[in-house]
Amino acid sequence: MQLHLSTWPEVENYLQSSSGIIFPIGSTEQHGPTGLIGTDAICAEAIAKGVGEATGAMVGPTINVGMALHHLAFPGSISLRPSTLIQVVMDYVSSLANAGFSRFYFINGHGGNIATLKAAFSETYHHLGSHGQDVRCQVGNWFMARGVYQLAKELYSDQEGSHATPSEVAVTQFVYPEAIKTAPLNSEVASGHSIYSAQDFRAHYSDGRMGSNPALATPEHGQRFYEVAVKELSESYQRFLAEN
Amino acid sequence: MQLHLSTWPEVENYLQSSSGIIFPIGSTEQHGPTGLIGTDAICAEAIAKGVGEATGAMVGPTINVGMALHHLAFPGSISLRPSTLIQVVMDYVSSLANAGFSRFYFINGHGGNIATLKAAFSETYHHLGSHGQDVRCQVGNWFMARGVYQLAKELYSDQEGSHATPSEVAVTQFVYPEAIKTAPLNSEVASGHSIYSAQDFRAHYSDGRMGSNPALATPEHGQRFYEVAVKELSESYQRFLAEN
Amino acid sequence: MQLHLSTWPEVENYLQSSSGIIFPIGSTEQHGPTGLIGTDAICAEAIAKGVGEATGAMVGPTINVGMALHHLAFPGSISLRPSTLIQVVMDYVSSLANAGFSRFYFINGHGGNIATLKAAFSETYHHLGSHGQDVRCQVGNWFMARGVYQLAKELYSDQEGSHATPSEVAVTQFVYPEAIKTAPLNSEVASGHSIYSAQDFRAHYSDGRMGSNPALATPEHGQRFYEVAVKELSESYQRFLAEN
Amino acid sequence: MQLHLSTWPEVENYLQSSSGIIFPIGSTEQHGPTGLIGTDAICAEAIAKGVGEATGAMVGPTINVGMALHHLAFPGSISLRPSTLIQVVMDYVSSLANAGFSRFYFINGHGGNIATLKAAFSETYHHLGSHGQDVRCQVGNWFMARGVYQLAKELYSDQEGSHATPSEVAVTQFVYPEAIKTAPLNSEVASGHSIYSAQDFRAHYSDGRMGSNPALATPEHGQRFYEVAVKELSESYQRFLAEN
Amino acid sequence: MQLHLSTWPEVENYLQSSSGIIFPIGSTEQHGPTGLIGTDAICAEAIAKGVGEATGAMVGPTINVGMALHHLAFPGSISLRPSTLIQVVMDYVSSLANAGFSRFYFINGHGGNIATLKAAFSETYHHLGSHGQDVRCQVGNWFMARGVYQLAKELYSDQEGSHATPSEVAVTQFVYPEAIKTAPLNSEVASGHSIYSAQDFRAHYSDGRMGSNPALATPEHGQRFYEVAVKELSESYQRFLAEN
Amino acid sequence: MQLHLSTWPEVENYLQSSSGIIFPIGSTEQHGPTGLIGTDAICAEAIAKGVGEATGAMVGPTINVGMALHHLAFPGSISLRPSTLIQVVMDYVSSLANAGFSRFYFINGHGGNIATLKAAFSETYHHLGSHGQDVRCQVGNWFMARGVYQLAKELYSDQEGSHATPSEVAVTQFVYPEAIKTAPLNSEVASGHSIYSAQDFRAHYSDGRMGSNPALATPEHGQRFYEVAVKELSESYQRFLAEN
Repeated sequence: MQLHLSTWPEVENYLQSSSGIIFPIGSTEQHGPTGLIGTDAICAEAIAKGVGEATGAMVGPTINVGMALHHLAFPGSISLRPSTLIQVVMDYVSSLANAGFSRFYFINGHGGNIATLKAAFSETYHHLGSHGQDVRCQVGNWFMARGVYQLAKELYSDQEGSHATPSEVAVTQFVYPEAIKTAPLNSEVASGHSIYSAQDFRAHYSDGRMGSNPALATPEHGQRFYEVAVKELSESYQRFLAEN
Repeated sequence: MQLHLSTWPEVENYLQSSSGIIFPIGSTEQHGPTGLIGTDAICAEAIAKGVGEATGAMVGPTINVGMALHHLAFPGSISLRPSTLIQVVMDYVSSLANAGFSRFYFINGHGGNIATLKAAFSETYHHLGSHGQDVRCQVGNWFMARGVYQLAKELYSDQEGSHATPSEVAVTQFVYPEAIKTAPLNSEVASGHSIYSAQDFRAHYSDGRMGSNPALATPEHGQRFYEVAVKELSESYQRFLAEN
Repeated sequence: MQLHLSTWPEVENYLQSSSGIIFPIGSTEQHGPTGLIGTDAICAEAIAKGVGEATGAMVGPTINVGMALHHLAFPGSISLRPSTLIQVVMDYVSSLANAGFSRFYFINGHGGNIATLKAAFSETYHHLGSHGQDVRCQVGNWFMARGVYQLAKELYSDQEGSHATPSEVAVTQFVYPEAIKTAPLNSEVASGHSIYSAQDFRAHYSDGRMGSNPALATPEHGQRFYEVAVKELSESYQRFLAEN
Repeated sequence: MQLHLSTWPEVENYLQSSSGIIFPIGSTEQHGPTGLIGTDAICAEAIAKGVGEATGAMVGPTINVGMALHHLAFPGSISLRPSTLIQVVMDYVSSLANAGFSRFYFINGHGGNIATLKAAFSETYHHLGSHGQDVRCQVGNWFMARGVYQLAKELYSDQEGSHATPSEVAVTQFVYPEAIKTAPLNSEVASGHSIYSAQDFRAHYSDGRMGSNPALATPEHGQRFYEVAVKELSESYQRFLAEN
Repeated sequence: MQLHLSTWPEVENYLQSSSGIIFPIGSTEQHGPTGLIGTDAICAEAIAKGVGEATGAMVGPTINVGMALHHLAFPGSISLRPSTLIQVVMDYVSSLANAGFSRFYFINGHGGNIATLKAAFSETYHHLGSHGQDVRCQVGNWFMARGVYQLAKELYSDQEGSHATPSEVAVTQFVYPEAIKTAPLNSEVASGHSIYSAQDFRAHYSDGRMGSNPALATPEHGQRFYEVAVKELSESYQRFLAEN
Repeated sequence: MQLHLSTWPEVENYLQSSSGIIFPIGSTEQHGPTGLIGTDAICAEAIAKGVGEATGAMVGPTINVGMALHHLAFPGSISLRPSTLIQVVMDYVSSLANAGFSRFYFINGHGGNIATLKAAFSETYHHLGSHGQDVRCQVGNWFMARGVYQLAKELYSDQEGSHATPSEVAVTQFVYPEAIKTAPLNSEVASGHSIYSAQDFRAHYSDGRMGSNPALATPEHGQRFYEVAVKELSESYQRFLAEN
């Protein structure tokens, strides 16, 4: 059930049986020479929709822009500052908590969002005060699901890397087969450097990839990742709802 | 050309010939008993995509949640506070201005966003300082385009109203024919009351509509609105780029 | 009744019969070669005082500095950032709402304030939460009153322009006849360019005027504008109080 | 020379010979049963205007609302939060520093503003960075001028008190003789209690006065205070400009 | 070398040979019935001092209060909001970056700080802009050092738990043997519940411990943990400095 | 009783008999060629600990970094912006007010903190709203205690100066005799210049001292200052608790 395709009386009705909602959160950032700038949002949105279908959960609108300050030296990348993203999360959760939602599950497609999301959850509970003592937020990172990790290992071994990975590129190929990009990829690819400023990032990761070989991706792989992720995050969401 | 479906080298290439980008901005808010909560985002996204195709412009990710504080007494509505939305716009524009974009055209689907967007543009130029003296932002409200207005008048006369209007509902029916909703609509519908707090809004507009009769909407109308809006906003975008 | 010239027991007494208050809000910004930098505040203050006398309303202190970031390339201009002005409005309204005021009518002398004021009103209702559900704010722009518009049309036709207009200059001449300024005005005056950054504004509007010929202003015109504005805004204020 | 009654070319000309500007800053707060709510702004504005005339200094618009959170339990009081006032001061100074002003002298009528003004000055220098290294701000408290203190001692001895004082009331009587208020004053008046929350303040200072007997004030006293304050603050302003 | 015990010429001299600085960061929060409220700060401070001695690094003042919002339902706990802590980190780093420091290593004693620190680092690089492109921040969590983990496993097995752990309590006993506390500890201890609001935390972790048995701690253990942590974090700090 | 060395049940017990807490607040800033950068924090911490012992008060963790923006042109200095420090104080007080503390006494070692602390106290009461009406904060500046002033006068006469004073240096020598520094001090020392930007400060106070001769300090003096300060601030704290 997608919030955007529902009416308010339908939401009112939904709240009779569930107080849970799923938010896909991605990023708008460079993903190497062949990865889509929307990769993280595309993956999160597709998987969240799948989880919604599998579990009957309400799925809210995708947060397309996340915390990607370190990618800003590559054109097309957009980032919220962490302090902005904290306010955004507070506003989303407060709006819906007021209406009766109390379980907020963020299906996340971007590692760079995790820290700020966690900070935002803490600040949100505090901001809501006594109204927020029953509100719970959780982040589900599809790319860190056990089955996803194992499949990536199996398919790509150490060419999975950690940014512009073949696994996430594969999911975008599954979702948007019409937008599969190719480009020559240097077989030498940087890895292992810590993430600091945007300029530093580009100086060390010259084409944007971090240790990955996205040329290995196929739409068929993408479907497999998608299915594994939907299955595991559906279980995770249901455990979240069932927590005492 | 959609930013989310592009790679960073494609963006780099695009910037050789244009510094313009279009952002669809909607809202996530109640639209009466039959209107979709995502109405404003759905319309803005579809029309922006159309404008992108017609003009070759880059289209950025949709801003799905806008300034809808006055709708929060209806479940499912989500709003940013104006001060949060200002920060969001500053972050979007700053990120891309840094990469060479300088013309930001927001295709807007929600009247409640206009004031905050204008405030945000001013604050953004100032924030960018000497780096921002050539940056220009503009908002194009599809529902205020002359042809849209005339068509709504012709089709719906005074049943167009000002929220949950048949024209916007029609566009969503054109875009998502599978999500057409029906419900009994009271023939008496409130109108003419100013907008204050969320509680006050609901007290005066009990089912969420403002003077509108969305039952008049059809997907065919939606297509006509879509086409008129794409045509007029495409011209508007091109005039914006051409300003000296 | 002016708040600044009242005592707190007088305010307490006033609240027995009215919960309304009027705030003049202007700007401190260049108004072309002959217009006073305080034009917008002077007009708003004088007209608000007149409305206060006509209606018995409490009139608060003038907000002398508003949102004029686009004028900052001309010396003497001062601006709040929109996000600052939002906080200022929230502080004013919160302070008085706590004491029992609930109808806040801002008599505004500057077009550049409108967007931020509207954003601020929304954020204020939200900030006040359940304490704010009965608070209402409205902006009355004296220069947009129907009679003012008609008179300006009649007296100045297309030389009224949109900044440093003869109508506003006339009001300041009526209020401060000792401060009438003259200077050679180029008969060519820019108009029609959208407003972006301060540097862009000055590049396009070299002497600060926007399509206006303030040399047409006279103190007698000013008095006529003043009287029309006071009459119309008094009616507007009373309608505001009478809204259900 | 008043900024509000000047044109931008006049300001440009003024900057040829001086980079100083004076801002009157007051407060909008209860001043006991007979003191005007605008007392602090009225005094600061009148004295600043006098200093402007005596020294040829530019005088900016009055900041009518200051930091008066502790007075909010009395109706009619308005306050900025300290963090808002800091932003306001930063915006004022930044706007004008950009145009060439570098000496900002705040003539202050309210003790409660001092701490926040000092904090704001520090934050402003820092915010301006290398552009701000030559900017200097200073606060001149008219009520703490030596001559004012001595005159108050001589006229009122220990009935001067520390809020709603006869000296400040006298200045308002001199400036607005038409707004002299009378009311029975309890001869017992609280004093010596520290200032904490608004509720605590009102609990301890039941009619708003702090140890003062404003019934002693006369317009003639007001004129004497005014003259002493103008003389001393004019000297102080000139010393400020002359600092190396 | 401790910053607090140095003079500015000594710092100037230090900067000739190193641009690194270490900040201990802890928390002020409940640590169960027998753990000190300052546990996290005490451990971080002691270990940072040890690392400073081992490596010759400058050690800055301890950040005693961190992000502990979820502990606030236990008396004595103090927390910054994440958005406050982000500003604090930005201020610390900006102050010193300006003086020539460029490597900031935070020795952290509290898991709850990690997310906000990471968010703060990103925002800091961005805030510093071109001045910050060479600034690097890193967090070193002493309790996650491999040797610490192994030792805790060896000494306490599954009674280590995750809050108010015997390992951290042991370090405080080593540092402050005069402040060893005892109290009856329920042998049943909650564990495995996710962290949400402060009220939710206390409802699930009734005495504040999370799966731990701090009664196992001894000062001798504390010394061993201290030595292992100093050794590993010293190596980590030196690798950080040596990164290209 | 030190909060950092207490457990939460001990705090709970303390609150049965007292709602008071003392926070030492210092600064991390240059103190001339021989003064320790931590001088203000060291003095505040030692004296606060002494006051805690003398009165049985709870003493919270030291705030090591304060408002020292004007010292940032000397390496090693760290400062919070005033707006950050306001948030920090709000977070500290809110955290503990929620647990039952209501009397917050800040023992302060740095003149530059006073203004911001006062602003922060006001904002804190307001922020806490009805929960804060009984909260009271006070600042006790050890260096302004009458006995300290007299002793400094007696020992150092006009060589006490106002920054990097022999009195504060003496206290640090008493607390850290192992960290007594010596360096040639120019017998000419600047004084009397107002404090503006960091660059301006360094331009006028070239070695960081303000009119002081810290070479006069001895550890024995330090002990005397310490004892006088502890005695007077203990009395001050007890008067604060006893206020009606």
